[in-house]
Amino acid sequence: MPIVTIQVTREGTKPGAKSVTAEEKAQLIMGVSKLLLDVLNKPLESTFVVIEEVDTDNWGWGGLPALEYRRQRAQTPR
Amino acid sequence: MPIVTIQVTREGTKPGAKSVTAEEKAQLIMGVSKLLLDVLNKPLESTFVVIEEVDTDNWGWGGLPALEYRRQRAQTPR
Amino acid sequence: MPIVTIQVTREGTKPGAKSVTAEEKAQLIMGVSKLLLDVLNKPLESTFVVIEEVDTDNWGWGGLPALEYRRQRAQTPR
Amino acid sequence: MPIVTIQVTREGTKPGAKSVTAEEKAQLIMGVSKLLLDVLNKPLESTFVVIEEVDTDNWGWGGLPALEYRRQRAQTPR
Amino acid sequence: MPIVTIQVTREGTKPGAKSVTAEEKAQLIMGVSKLLLDVLNKPLESTFVVIEEVDTDNWGWGGLPALEYRRQRAQTPR
Amino acid sequence: MPIVTIQVTREGTKPGAKSVTAEEKAQLIMGVSKLLLDVLNKPLESTFVVIEEVDTDNWGWGGLPALEYRRQRAQTPR
Repeated sequence: MPIVTIQVTREGTKPGAKSVTAEEKAQLIMGVSKLLLDVLNKPLESTFVVIEEVDTDNWGWGGLPALEYRRQRAQTPR
Repeated sequence: MPIVTIQVTREGTKPGAKSVTAEEKAQLIMGVSKLLLDVLNKPLESTFVVIEEVDTDNWGWGGLPALEYRRQRAQTPR
Repeated sequence: MPIVTIQVTREGTKPGAKSVTAEEKAQLIMGVSKLLLDVLNKPLESTFVVIEEVDTDNWGWGGLPALEYRRQRAQTPR
Repeated sequence: MPIVTIQVTREGTKPGAKSVTAEEKAQLIMGVSKLLLDVLNKPLESTFVVIEEVDTDNWGWGGLPALEYRRQRAQTPR
Repeated sequence: MPIVTIQVTREGTKPGAKSVTAEEKAQLIMGVSKLLLDVLNKPLESTFVVIEEVDTDNWGWGGLPALEYRRQRAQTPR
Repeated sequence: MPIVTIQVTREGTKPGAKSVTAEEKAQLIMGVSKLLLDVLNKPLESTFVVIEEVDTDNWGWGGLPALEYRRQRAQTPR
């Protein structure tokens, strides 16, 4: 009876997309449900998946809003 | 000091409604707060309730997006 | 397909009990599942309930650990 | 590697604002990330923060939707 | 910067195991992190995974504690 | 009426401590409650804080269990 919650920023990965597409969501749902079947033998029908899309303003990393943190990291020489 | 989180798909149950109505939400809030009073003796004023409505695309069951899973189950002879 | 998460402090309400009893948990599970059936017409078998018991040290209210906050409130004249 | 989730009602605190502003969100992100650095010595870059804004209809307190509960408390003589 | 939370009952799937093993947990962590890389192009190092094991008493399905629900389903002719 | 959830690995930061101490928890609770008062003008008594300690086996980063990921990062020249 697993519950899987996937939190991601609300952004597109495909050109022109402003958020995760319905197809990508379906791939995440199937992928993680199969993983629980393979690793823990949980039947597909007993797994719930919830995808939460979070505005980039509402996501913090490194003490900064996500987009600003990415900008800073991109500029930092390594 | 309980916190109750209720996650449901963003769908209407009443004709014409596209989501849970404000009246239904109020019933959920009162119902679950009273339940915690009855069972665990928690005063109403110490219970927080958060209702999260999740788009049907973002909810997975049986390895599929929720609406597709329901369609398949409806077609399966039992 | 609702998911209900109930977070409570790990404490007993019955004399001698140090945590929520199995019977109380069963009452919470049935009560909240029925509520979702009554209010939103969700079948019992499509509702998941997760009860999370949280140590009183790990719960804060009023800027203080829960037990300390209760002590202060009990002493405050109203 | 802390994860901090901050759930607040979707309301403005500044005149004219209908929700938490981007600047307030940035202050929350920085403030809580620094707190984890100060108290638990967690580096800023290992802390994730997620802010969830919840419609006031979807938030319950005292057995009532949040705004109604506030109205009642405001009217109660103490 | 995804966060994936996997909630499962605290049970073993291997003979003699009373909970998810460390190896199974590592497989879940790697599997879901790769899934997010494959589907959404998220680098492994930006994904956090949290596995929450929940006592079977604390998990409800079908209005009942999980183990009781399973017993009933096993007895129901289909 | 904010709810703040702080998830950290169950580890000590002080010499000899195997987990977050009660004093550190109290500092987190007060610190984050004050932050919400300062930034969003939320009264202390309307903020709930829940601290969740997660076993290091149950926390994944970079596709690996947390301790293994840290070991690898410590060995990587930058």
